[in-house]
Amino acid sequence: MKPTKIQLSEKDIPTSWYNIMADIDFPMEPPLHPETKEPIGPEALEPIFPMALIGQEVSQERWIEIPEEVRDIYALYRPSPLFRAHRLEAALGTPAKIYYKYEGVSPAGSHKPNTAIAQAYYNKEAGVKRIATETGAGQWGSAISLACNYFDIECMVYMVKVSYEQKPYRRSLMEIWGANVIPSPSDQTEFGRKILAQDPESLGSLGIAISEAMGDAASREDTNYALGSVLNHVMLHQTVIGLETKKQMEIAGDYPDVIIGCCGGGSNLAGLSFPFLADKFAGKDVRVVAAEPKACPTLTEGKCEYDFGDTAGMTPLLKMYTLGHEFVPAGIHAGGLRYHGDSPIISALYEHDLIEAVAVHQNPVFESAVQFARTEGIVPAPESAHAVRVAIDEALEAKKTGEPKTILFGLSGHGHFDLASYDAYLAGKLIDYDYASEES
Amino acid sequence: MKPTKIQLSEKDIPTSWYNIMADIDFPMEPPLHPETKEPIGPEALEPIFPMALIGQEVSQERWIEIPEEVRDIYALYRPSPLFRAHRLEAALGTPAKIYYKYEGVSPAGSHKPNTAIAQAYYNKEAGVKRIATETGAGQWGSAISLACNYFDIECMVYMVKVSYEQKPYRRSLMEIWGANVIPSPSDQTEFGRKILAQDPESLGSLGIAISEAMGDAASREDTNYALGSVLNHVMLHQTVIGLETKKQMEIAGDYPDVIIGCCGGGSNLAGLSFPFLADKFAGKDVRVVAAEPKACPTLTEGKCEYDFGDTAGMTPLLKMYTLGHEFVPAGIHAGGLRYHGDSPIISALYEHDLIEAVAVHQNPVFESAVQFARTEGIVPAPESAHAVRVAIDEALEAKKTGEPKTILFGLSGHGHFDLASYDAYLAGKLIDYDYASEES
Repeated sequence: MKPTKIQLSEKDIPTSWYNIMADIDFPMEPPLHPETKEPIGPEALEPIFPMALIGQEVSQERWIEIPEEVRDIYALYRPSPLFRAHRLEAALGTPAKIYYKYEGVSPAGSHKPNTAIAQAYYNKEAGVKRIATETGAGQWGSAISLACNYFDIECMVYMVKVSYEQKPYRRSLMEIWGANVIPSPSDQTEFGRKILAQDPESLGSLGIAISEAMGDAASREDTNYALGSVLNHVMLHQTVIGLETKKQMEIAGDYPDVIIGCCGGGSNLAGLSFPFLADKFAGKDVRVVAAEPKACPTLTEGKCEYDFGDTAGMTPLLKMYTLGHEFVPAGIHAGGLRYHGDSPIISALYEHDLIEAVAVHQNPVFESAVQFARTEGIVPAPESAHAVRVAIDEALEAKKTGEPKTILFGLSGHGHFDLASYDAYLAGKLIDYDYASEES
Repeated sequence: MKPTKIQLSEKDIPTSWYNIMADIDFPMEPPLHPETKEPIGPEALEPIFPMALIGQEVSQERWIEIPEEVRDIYALYRPSPLFRAHRLEAALGTPAKIYYKYEGVSPAGSHKPNTAIAQAYYNKEAGVKRIATETGAGQWGSAISLACNYFDIECMVYMVKVSYEQKPYRRSLMEIWGANVIPSPSDQTEFGRKILAQDPESLGSLGIAISEAMGDAASREDTNYALGSVLNHVMLHQTVIGLETKKQMEIAGDYPDVIIGCCGGGSNLAGLSFPFLADKFAGKDVRVVAAEPKACPTLTEGKCEYDFGDTAGMTPLLKMYTLGHEFVPAGIHAGGLRYHGDSPIISALYEHDLIEAVAVHQNPVFESAVQFARTEGIVPAPESAHAVRVAIDEALEAKKTGEPKTILFGLSGHGHFDLASYDAYLAGKLIDYDYASEES
């Protein structure tokens, strides 16, 4: 048998998260107050986050211990498997070796629970009784619902109304785990009521939903807010992915020449690549590539400047690559990559040429996803399929040059709740939107 | 950390299947010709099955080697994890230890690929170019689509029309893996055309679809038929589940007092329990319990007699527990358990008091499924949830008696394509059908 799957045992679940802030040699620019535009301190976040997470947000410690209770829940699905893609390699006829780390084994089907569980834990420790959050397509919403359930925290999810209506099964998943899910804009918050007054038929947007969830959390003593990407502590929690992968690559007797991850807010790419970037800082030669959609090419076509995280302008201003907080990406099927901004750390690494970025269209993305499903079996989430596309392109390039390189990519989730998008692809109905083109 | 997940490495994938026929001490009654009612020999099956599978169907060898090519594909998802359900135990307050073997890690989401891959392999070896099969809810259809894809065999799936229309995502999955899926009754077969002539609006049934697929296979030189349950060789292939579980229980330092599996045609229960029954034949004290729906209580209320496998009466007659081949079970959500008959081996074991059976209603089944999802994370398939219900009942019984027994159950698949049924349950809309009651 050719070794296919490198599976660690649960004693190999990392005991600490890796904090890249300890190793970067450039200063990060601070978040600014949304109104005064002055740098804000950690205390500004206290109304909506527990102090432990705020501490992690600004920490310079290289290693931050993972609480035992969090590792116990990680053990329900971690360590996740690393696969050598023998069948995909053979189909491509490439001399490259392709590895992928699969996060779809979590009950919610993506890497999102890695941070959701940690966030729920620290909120519980701080005595928080209720968490409010937003969700678009539902990946984050289902992860935080699962996590809150484990810590007996009430979970309130503002789900973008168009998704609430079109993707009922993601909503079902959240409800099975006990969350309260309502369509946004809603009449539960001041901001929601304002939007509904202007347009009772509003289908909502992620920006509106964020504003509703933050408003909910800010207005209630017992409630905090939780965010599934962008922030430093989210990137931190996701490093369990890369830490496990390093052990697994060592068992495989290989080291990646290039690491690829899809990148929306950046947490999946960060999680897989940061532990390897630590080696790069120490002189190792390894490329890291962000795969993003051409319809929302934040790194490849955005500007690195201060911008709001939400549409309404309620969040602190963050220095990041952005297409403008009012930019509404075309309706591509990779809902998780439709974000105007990017993680400040990912942005800074990109600005300092420590990582690269490639933008791809959704038809070639789904083409690669189907090729992957037919060789490796797993049906990728549309988001993850962006990484599949870029990995295949690297492997085909290696075929051209004859270079036997080692490619590692992150398969951040499965596509079980996204099969309508595969139907559309197979029926030839997907449109490849360019940046700035209008949604049809 | 409390050990939660016992994960073997791929070198632990079994090298042989266990054939229970070598160890039973009662004679099995032969299949009969559908018209002459005379016992049929292996050669009668040759038009639709490859000789290697027919050989396995009648083999008395205890161990049958698993081909390397099959083990290579098993390695994409096997060995599957065994979990200790600490959180469920705590929620129940039971002294019982609960373990579950999870087969939802396969790309198709259930245990079905264990036999689909083997069947596709032997057909490929025999030079077969095309496989015709039927599918109801789609679990088997997606498994055989996946398997045919690996061996470059054209796959033709006759999908019960009502499911084809109501469950488009299972169809999508099959198409992603390259299968040709058509609604049954279809105009592709003589039997389909006959049905359509009688009723152009027919929504189809599993019986009709089996007849179409068998008719297709019998009428074409290049085509064989494949069945996902009931037959001896299917039970055989599924024993990888129990063989792995025995190793994992040994690592856990435990041995089950009772083993529970949901039972439609019987392949999931057989796969998990047969390797343990080998110990029972050698004197070990272990109970095996089949969990079936009250709406289709084949073992608990059926008769053990010769009956057809399909509705049209085209298959050989098999000696099995049956509710009659014309019985149409009520429309419960566990589509995979809506079968009028049962595996002949499972039937014989039940008749000889070597296994037990319990029938449960779907509302308590979904209640236990939600409790399981909220403690262990995974959302079970409605079929698998029948085993969850019976396992929980065993654990609650242990709580009453104070007996610290060890319960093992099979979680045969995830419910990602069945969330509409959870919606119906949470909305209080599920009906508990009794056997013989009319479908409402």
